Amino acid sequence: MMKHTDSIEMLIAKFQSLGGVGKKTAMRYAYKVVDMAQSEVDAFCHALQEVKQKVRYCEICGTFAESQKCEICSKRESDIICVVAYPKDVLSIEKGGCYQGLYHVLHGTISPLDGRGPNDLRIKPLLARLADCREVIVATNPDVEGEATALYLARIIKPLGVQVSRIAQGVSMGSDLEYVDDLTLSKALENRQSL
Amino acid sequence: MMKHTDSIEMLIAKFQSLGGVGKKTAMRYAYKVVDMAQSEVDAFCHALQEVKQKVRYCEICGTFAESQKCEICSKRESDIICVVAYPKDVLSIEKGGCYQGLYHVLHGTISPLDGRGPNDLRIKPLLARLADCREVIVATNPDVEGEATALYLARIIKPLGVQVSRIAQGVSMGSDLEYVDDLTLSKALENRQSL
Repeated sequence: MMKHTDSIEMLIAKFQSLGGVGKKTAMRYAYKVVDMAQSEVDAFCHALQEVKQKVRYCEICGTFAESQKCEICSKRESDIICVVAYPKDVLSIEKGGCYQGLYHVLHGTISPLDGRGPNDLRIKPLLARLADCREVIVATNPDVEGEATALYLARIIKPLGVQVSRIAQGVSMGSDLEYVDDLTLSKALENRQSL
Repeated sequence: MMKHTDSIEMLIAKFQSLGGVGKKTAMRYAYKVVDMAQSEVDAFCHALQEVKQKVRYCEICGTFAESQKCEICSKRESDIICVVAYPKDVLSIEKGGCYQGLYHVLHGTISPLDGRGPNDLRIKPLLARLADCREVIVATNPDVEGEATALYLARIIKPLGVQVSRIAQGVSMGSDLEYVDDLTLSKALENRQSL
């Protein structure tokens, strides 16, 4: 039986290491590389190396940056810090365009099952930033780990005299009540707001 | 609004150029690269370059090879040639393990809508191989382009005194008649075989 050549097999493994890439998908990518021009492959390698060499995490908030401080930490002034789990979450919130405060990236959430406790997250750097801070908004995902992280942060930050809030939980805009899950609906009723 | 850094944006574009990769997926791959060790990124680039430099198409059959002739063309002797559209199809048939003949890869199918005619496929090299050939099995996909290609090949190869056959079309093994589409079922009845 004929198999892939060794070099294709190696590249397939590399694509699979990107995470969430199955064998068939990795094969498709590798076949595409065979058909690429040498210049395209060079450009691909250059892009990989550029990201590795230039992109780091902001020393203050922990999101992606190409220098010591990210764009937001260098330019914005605010006494509100929005805490998120991963750098991509900063981009999601920025896309909305309605938040003008600062960020803090934890690089994970508290997850005892995965052996990740508070000391594995960027919580100490957050506490060090609270001197001039009026409010911390916890914008972790509304799942078990995200909720646990929010409760933990509230417990250690509130005693420092800083307000801690959580992004609202309820029905999504444009959704249909018929298809909203029970837990979301009960949260939406519980957190109802007067008009 | 904060955006991706330039180098991340560039890498996202590269991943998207692999085909069938959306923006979100490409972003996920790029974030993964940020977290890779330098050695992993080097290994990834090396794998890309190795494939580009080592993998070529077999001069005889047109499938993937790391030298002038692929493994199958160098080792197997047979008077049967199985014609497929793409190199990956060779691997699919080899995986089955029941075919011991040679292959010929067309690198496409006849598709007037995409402006691809017989002269854009590796048909001349196929005709040049037919001197010692007893049978050509056309194993292109059972769709419009695959059928058109099979009919075209039959029309030009049969006059040369070589038998031309087509892979059987019918119900898949393990399928349920209730869910088989009409066209497949009518093909299965039309091509019924005596027991």
